[in-house]
Amino acid sequence: MNVVQFGIGPIGLESVKTILQKQSTGKIRLVGVIDIDPNKIGKDVGHLLAEPVDTGVIVSSDAAAVLESVDVDVVVHTTSSFLDSMYDQLVLCAEKGANVVSSTEELSYPYERHPQIAEKIDAVAKRYGVTIVGTGVNPGYAMDVLALTATGVSTDVHRVRISRVVDAGKRRKPLQAKVGAGISAEEFAEKKATGKFGHIGLRESLLMVADGLGWELTSAEENLDPVISTKKVITPYFTVEEGAVAGIHHSIKGFVGSDAVITLDLQMYVGADDPHDAVFVEGTPPIDLIVRGGIFGDTATIAALVNAIPLAASSDPGLKTVKDLPVPRAFATVPQ
Amino acid sequence: MNVVQFGIGPIGLESVKTILQKQSTGKIRLVGVIDIDPNKIGKDVGHLLAEPVDTGVIVSSDAAAVLESVDVDVVVHTTSSFLDSMYDQLVLCAEKGANVVSSTEELSYPYERHPQIAEKIDAVAKRYGVTIVGTGVNPGYAMDVLALTATGVSTDVHRVRISRVVDAGKRRKPLQAKVGAGISAEEFAEKKATGKFGHIGLRESLLMVADGLGWELTSAEENLDPVISTKKVITPYFTVEEGAVAGIHHSIKGFVGSDAVITLDLQMYVGADDPHDAVFVEGTPPIDLIVRGGIFGDTATIAALVNAIPLAASSDPGLKTVKDLPVPRAFATVPQ
Repeated sequence: MNVVQFGIGPIGLESVKTILQKQSTGKIRLVGVIDIDPNKIGKDVGHLLAEPVDTGVIVSSDAAAVLESVDVDVVVHTTSSFLDSMYDQLVLCAEKGANVVSSTEELSYPYERHPQIAEKIDAVAKRYGVTIVGTGVNPGYAMDVLALTATGVSTDVHRVRISRVVDAGKRRKPLQAKVGAGISAEEFAEKKATGKFGHIGLRESLLMVADGLGWELTSAEENLDPVISTKKVITPYFTVEEGAVAGIHHSIKGFVGSDAVITLDLQMYVGADDPHDAVFVEGTPPIDLIVRGGIFGDTATIAALVNAIPLAASSDPGLKTVKDLPVPRAFATVPQ
Repeated sequence: MNVVQFGIGPIGLESVKTILQKQSTGKIRLVGVIDIDPNKIGKDVGHLLAEPVDTGVIVSSDAAAVLESVDVDVVVHTTSSFLDSMYDQLVLCAEKGANVVSSTEELSYPYERHPQIAEKIDAVAKRYGVTIVGTGVNPGYAMDVLALTATGVSTDVHRVRISRVVDAGKRRKPLQAKVGAGISAEEFAEKKATGKFGHIGLRESLLMVADGLGWELTSAEENLDPVISTKKVITPYFTVEEGAVAGIHHSIKGFVGSDAVITLDLQMYVGADDPHDAVFVEGTPPIDLIVRGGIFGDTATIAALVNAIPLAASSDPGLKTVKDLPVPRAFATVPQ
């Protein structure tokens, strides 16, 4: 698999690091890197890593030129959470014959927020014979693919309850900032009022689960509240006093009539005592699935992207959601 | 989805019952039933259920005639655990243009035990444009698909440990008999010596996981031991005295060199205290996944089959393993 990394912010650089580590397996190779940051352009991407290495792969801002100059199977795309700001990038990749695995949260299930863009992406992907898919740990796995998988051995399913508790204090700094660690309840209210706060992708996960089950939701109800810290918590980046905001409690319920048939409950805050991922399937048989300790998101996001590379490359052309790719599995790992 | 049920032993009849229950969704319909039992031929299949219903679908032993007379999308095939005894049935289904979802354990990953048959099935499936896949709860989900899914968010994976503990006392009578509930250690040894005792499909699950991870195993080591009951256990069908056989402890290890990199450990016995399914992925991040209470196999086997119907129908033609179908999910269920 020849891979081009499109976007080398924190996630993109971690992806580069992971791809380079996997090169010894002979199954994957980094052949190009695209970014618009003037401080990165022209540099060997390996020199931008925390532990610098020589790779010979030079960062370029000319995406078209990179995609034309190399034989690329899959682009790992990590430039934005929002679809309208990067639609052109996906089209370019498709035109150059590259499959795309993207971390764009809105791409994970774009049919509701961006039906027209979704239709265009599907058409362009089919025209050029490539697969385009959005994935990551959440959306893309913890609160959608894992939940659907849990329903796969039930004959009846009446309700699905999905929960994820993340100790934000163990995560990277941007995530701690993103959940509002250390801010006051008033600041939280102000941020919430902007409509740009909270976890991106919860609605996409809900819709993916509903679609996977073939359930037509009649409404959805979203809630975003602060988690107020009951203790003083010191992370490597923030100090959260007792009574300050520790993070977010973000949930969404999908209804059929007055019944909340799919619920997603996400808590991301510093000092969380019992981080875990859980899916409860009310059905026959019921399924009570838990990932003890939770799925560590910083690494898992990268893994979800890189592990999707061969699955995207071998899928039928078009815009896909991860539920329609084959069963996820680790790629290019070394047993020992 | 128009479905023909091929084989109505206990599993097949449960499948029929489940399909009939799902018919109200308008997504699935039973259009034919095939079986060779003289006591069943000519009867309305609904009359063979524990709670009889009229269906108008008459059991026939003439498989070719049934498959020709109805418009069939998928055959649910439940006639045998062994591939060589039912290969002809698969070929017939393919020739009639029907996709097949089969409970045949050896079909779940047939490439090692039956490479030539696997090649022939793949060829015939491709020739007639149908998908043929073997599935069930185990093999097909608990110790393979679920384990692969657990590795899907790890960048490194070094080892995978899979365990399943089943309280056989809560399962149907044939399963309790199959694991040797109530027999003596000597009888267990005699049964084991026949080579036809123990769980069928453990090796298939191991090979599916290894293949999914792209790991080349250099050897495998299988062990089958009795679980000796430490207490008197009375099930609806058997009484197991303290010191008698309660069931089986069947395990397999897949090695790379001297390292056991994939282990599957299955205990099925009456009176099991802590039934569960678990996958531990040694990797980055590690994944510690557990299904509390376990996956109830009698129902889950049926669910795995029926839920695979639309996935098989929409897949590319050929012989597939479940890991290569889209992410599993419940089919034709009703939220409430």
